[in-house]
Amino acid sequence: MTTSVGIVGFRGYSGAELIRILERHSHAEPVLMEHRSDSAAESLPRGSKGHKRIPCTPEAVASANLSAVFLATPPEVSMDLTPGILEAGAKVIDLSGAFRLGTAETYKYWYKTEHTQADLLKEAAYGLPEFCRDRIRDARLVSNPGCYPTAANLAIKPLVSRELIDRSAGIVCDGKSGVSGAGRKPSMKTSFCEVTENFSAYSLLDHRHVPEVLMNSGLNADEFSFVAQLIPIDRGILETIYFRGVEGLTAEIVVNTYEDFYKGEPFVRFYDPGVVPDLRTVQHTNFCDIGVKYDPATRRGVVVSVIDNLGKGAAGQAVQNMNLILGYPEQEGLL
Amino acid sequence: MTTSVGIVGFRGYSGAELIRILERHSHAEPVLMEHRSDSAAESLPRGSKGHKRIPCTPEAVASANLSAVFLATPPEVSMDLTPGILEAGAKVIDLSGAFRLGTAETYKYWYKTEHTQADLLKEAAYGLPEFCRDRIRDARLVSNPGCYPTAANLAIKPLVSRELIDRSAGIVCDGKSGVSGAGRKPSMKTSFCEVTENFSAYSLLDHRHVPEVLMNSGLNADEFSFVAQLIPIDRGILETIYFRGVEGLTAEIVVNTYEDFYKGEPFVRFYDPGVVPDLRTVQHTNFCDIGVKYDPATRRGVVVSVIDNLGKGAAGQAVQNMNLILGYPEQEGLL
Amino acid sequence: MTTSVGIVGFRGYSGAELIRILERHSHAEPVLMEHRSDSAAESLPRGSKGHKRIPCTPEAVASANLSAVFLATPPEVSMDLTPGILEAGAKVIDLSGAFRLGTAETYKYWYKTEHTQADLLKEAAYGLPEFCRDRIRDARLVSNPGCYPTAANLAIKPLVSRELIDRSAGIVCDGKSGVSGAGRKPSMKTSFCEVTENFSAYSLLDHRHVPEVLMNSGLNADEFSFVAQLIPIDRGILETIYFRGVEGLTAEIVVNTYEDFYKGEPFVRFYDPGVVPDLRTVQHTNFCDIGVKYDPATRRGVVVSVIDNLGKGAAGQAVQNMNLILGYPEQEGLL
Amino acid sequence: MTTSVGIVGFRGYSGAELIRILERHSHAEPVLMEHRSDSAAESLPRGSKGHKRIPCTPEAVASANLSAVFLATPPEVSMDLTPGILEAGAKVIDLSGAFRLGTAETYKYWYKTEHTQADLLKEAAYGLPEFCRDRIRDARLVSNPGCYPTAANLAIKPLVSRELIDRSAGIVCDGKSGVSGAGRKPSMKTSFCEVTENFSAYSLLDHRHVPEVLMNSGLNADEFSFVAQLIPIDRGILETIYFRGVEGLTAEIVVNTYEDFYKGEPFVRFYDPGVVPDLRTVQHTNFCDIGVKYDPATRRGVVVSVIDNLGKGAAGQAVQNMNLILGYPEQEGLL
Repeated sequence: MTTSVGIVGFRGYSGAELIRILERHSHAEPVLMEHRSDSAAESLPRGSKGHKRIPCTPEAVASANLSAVFLATPPEVSMDLTPGILEAGAKVIDLSGAFRLGTAETYKYWYKTEHTQADLLKEAAYGLPEFCRDRIRDARLVSNPGCYPTAANLAIKPLVSRELIDRSAGIVCDGKSGVSGAGRKPSMKTSFCEVTENFSAYSLLDHRHVPEVLMNSGLNADEFSFVAQLIPIDRGILETIYFRGVEGLTAEIVVNTYEDFYKGEPFVRFYDPGVVPDLRTVQHTNFCDIGVKYDPATRRGVVVSVIDNLGKGAAGQAVQNMNLILGYPEQEGLL
Repeated sequence: MTTSVGIVGFRGYSGAELIRILERHSHAEPVLMEHRSDSAAESLPRGSKGHKRIPCTPEAVASANLSAVFLATPPEVSMDLTPGILEAGAKVIDLSGAFRLGTAETYKYWYKTEHTQADLLKEAAYGLPEFCRDRIRDARLVSNPGCYPTAANLAIKPLVSRELIDRSAGIVCDGKSGVSGAGRKPSMKTSFCEVTENFSAYSLLDHRHVPEVLMNSGLNADEFSFVAQLIPIDRGILETIYFRGVEGLTAEIVVNTYEDFYKGEPFVRFYDPGVVPDLRTVQHTNFCDIGVKYDPATRRGVVVSVIDNLGKGAAGQAVQNMNLILGYPEQEGLL
Repeated sequence: MTTSVGIVGFRGYSGAELIRILERHSHAEPVLMEHRSDSAAESLPRGSKGHKRIPCTPEAVASANLSAVFLATPPEVSMDLTPGILEAGAKVIDLSGAFRLGTAETYKYWYKTEHTQADLLKEAAYGLPEFCRDRIRDARLVSNPGCYPTAANLAIKPLVSRELIDRSAGIVCDGKSGVSGAGRKPSMKTSFCEVTENFSAYSLLDHRHVPEVLMNSGLNADEFSFVAQLIPIDRGILETIYFRGVEGLTAEIVVNTYEDFYKGEPFVRFYDPGVVPDLRTVQHTNFCDIGVKYDPATRRGVVVSVIDNLGKGAAGQAVQNMNLILGYPEQEGLL
Repeated sequence: MTTSVGIVGFRGYSGAELIRILERHSHAEPVLMEHRSDSAAESLPRGSKGHKRIPCTPEAVASANLSAVFLATPPEVSMDLTPGILEAGAKVIDLSGAFRLGTAETYKYWYKTEHTQADLLKEAAYGLPEFCRDRIRDARLVSNPGCYPTAANLAIKPLVSRELIDRSAGIVCDGKSGVSGAGRKPSMKTSFCEVTENFSAYSLLDHRHVPEVLMNSGLNADEFSFVAQLIPIDRGILETIYFRGVEGLTAEIVVNTYEDFYKGEPFVRFYDPGVVPDLRTVQHTNFCDIGVKYDPATRRGVVVSVIDNLGKGAAGQAVQNMNLILGYPEQEGLL
């Protein structure tokens, strides 16, 4: 017995990844929702049947009997579409930043435009299951977290909440992402010849993902520095996180704390003290892998946290959230 | 009127870059010194005359009348070769780490082997012209700096010495390098399929380049955190440097301080406050480009410093040093 | 009810791909066979249980009750290991070139060494299911085809056997492969800095995969030109195949002929006339995708054939063969 | 004593390469001509003086006293601008395809639009100095060749005109180019995530560069097959050219014929029989390197021809042409 779930923005990288994941899902079947007349020529093998396509309207949602709809769209579009889809009886999992921040004011400050659905902000559940599983289960509207904050929060929150770090020194998070994180719309910044054999920093200290980290980790603005950078690869996020430890801290303590904090979590994994992951073990998965190096003599520590920006950073986590709100096993389709 | 200069290790990436630079130099002509019988098959166009080749012996140095010899070799080899070349009357510019640290003890601590030419350590000039120009001019033996420390020191020293930063928070330097920095010897870590579409950290907190930064910048070990990382590109280093500023600091003050500190320096360039460089402007050059972002409200600052690891990080700086010790214009061959 | 199958060479790229495919297989479970003491440090997340490991001996094969063993090893090693494994009661699927050519003489001519198991050559089934399905089903020893020949034969054989081409003009096959096709052993040719931003041809006209194409397609040596080339990517093979058509040929006829020739085949797909595939649709799959462009006015035609060199070109096809010899559904684990 | 030369389209890849080459030229100084209000934000180091900028008008050409103007623009723009610039007294070197084909009809057939300056077609000299040096010297308007045809013609013409090949079998030219050949305007086809780890064919058999090859080599349409393909790299073209040799041909004869045909040519180089070049030796140069493999037993031959698409394939050759029409040494700025 399967259910149908809609995807708006299925031609983008997150949308395409949602299709791939759902094709292996035992209970949910993707339905592609044509939002604009972006009739992109798609070369498919002859006879490919492909997936069902419907228009992106509340009526179509209702008549296709969709139980949930993924919005892999820009925030303005997500704000536009969400009320209608909810009224049509489907739950919404929004991959944009539209519903991540708590208030319309905060949204306006970071996204530079008015929030047009302020009343939905309160009911939106922040879709990081490791922190908010119960709220997600009961939500009509799940706001899928940003890619950088997912890798950052999973690594930082235990350090802060278990008081392993000296917050007076601040935490530095040096973020690097593959280019698919910038979306599929052609632009100079993501053109092949501009990116290949290059490496560049952007949104230094003022990336709109910053408030998601503060909100979840409990850090203050003057305690957290973040820079985003573009790796000349397709997919993957690696964050190098620097901190000063409290007296007596060791790498073993940090790793053990993580394991305790995430006991039973299927998608967060750790390494032996001193060993850190690269992108290979998480690409095309929903895992977040974390490793720690620490020097007790100087109390300087480093955590490396990696995810696939299209996996745990977007489509993978979105399906994890879908599993929660529709009552499927949380790992279905993701292992 | 030209002089001849030798290159040991000319088949490596730094060696090949030395050849390319010297081919445009008006006064120095490269002579290739065959160190081992590594008779690598080299496909060259028919009739290519190539450069003069001599054995790597003191006699050959003397009879070819070399005025200087570049050692683009591992530290053990550099220690072996240096005394003989000096005795044969040529100056030595060593691109390895053999003569960078002040004492045999420090060398042993970071390089894990005994130093076999401890008496040469004192006379070796550290080859960062922006800091040590006068000592270099008079030296017989110049120790060319490491690639990571070159980008780091040029960015950090003015911040420390002009007291723009709150050292109690520490300085974080997140380093990223192209693969050519690892040398040309084939290894699993630098195999194409291991590196492409990947990104990885190595030598977390204990990279052997760390003491070069402490030594030059005046920072203490517990004030400086460094992680090295591999970008899937051929060449280029980008370092993202995080600091907490003193009360009243602005990005303008930082940029102005840099410009004042490096007044007249031909190879260090700066950007308007808030603008940072990527690798494009420095690849295949001897420049170090530096940009600054600063948030006075939280006193968090970021400096981005970029070089070509084979340019200012190795061969380019080595030729700059050669120009100094042989009395040529410092920029010859490098613009 | 599952069976156990061994993998020798599981640290190589084909071996690792075998593990990944078998992890999704409903009936077969991978057992890793340690051939040499290549105790490569492998960083795995803490608590990863991994797969069963056994020594690479006939005794271990028997006592682990393996029903089949994959040899992802060089031909010399495959020749060494095969007799013992067969005697221990397991079937062998060899991914090397050891058993692909019909006679010991041909082997010696192309592989430049003596064949040490000549009597096994006759019983080895050539593992291209689309051509040899019945022989494979009954075989003890399957010789998995080369990557280039798989893409070439699937495209060329119908053209030749259905007499669509003017053989007097010859067929040109311009082959390009990702770097993983060269195996995982570090070498100068596959070093990152040598490959990135480069493109190079090798084994011009005399690649050892050529006889596999002649053998299967029925072309004579003077009718077939092949050049292998290295694309700076991890995985994927694209072959551009040029031919002169017979009088009256059209692209439609060619595509229809392909569809007829491969009716019911699950892993060969075609495109509308004039449309050709790139590598994206076949990477990480067991498909071979084929497209055709033809100009009736000049009778010049082009076929583009693409596979994943680690999929249909190696591990994918090997599992397809395993499914055949062990009696599982042919597509199991591969969709 | 230097002269000023204009560049229209200086923000594109060919335009930027023109600037780089001219910065090393002893006699010509680049002047940047602003064609549209494409006020691209350009981050330059503080205090960069940059080059003189003028509007793109005949008046500005005259008052800046430009002796030549490079048009690195689309064909429509080149047709628009050329008459005015010529009247203003400057020579024109056009890098587009506007003036490459002999007649307005041929142009319309291949470029799908009307030619608006048909009378200039007759006076335009085809700018391949190795074939048309004398005409170029006397021309007011030079039409710089396409990148693919440059590599193809230099390799093919000697084979055809010296009658080394059996034309009845046809010649196949399998072309591969770096992405910069597609220009700098962002598009889906040249987006990083679409290109990286991919390889794709386009314009099969009907690329608009084909008539340039036929025109120069003397081949008929049914004797020449060409496919263009995108390599995931920034710059470089490699063409693999297949032919059947006449009775008695050897690789030595082919290489010797080339050397004789191109005697004294500074920018065409050859390799020993059996050795072929990759892209490394020509990137960032104006060379075309050519190597040959031939099997006398089957009379099958392969030529590999490589250039930098921005060097000999565009900006390098354009400066070579400029040197000819302005009377400078042909190699000035190019070695």
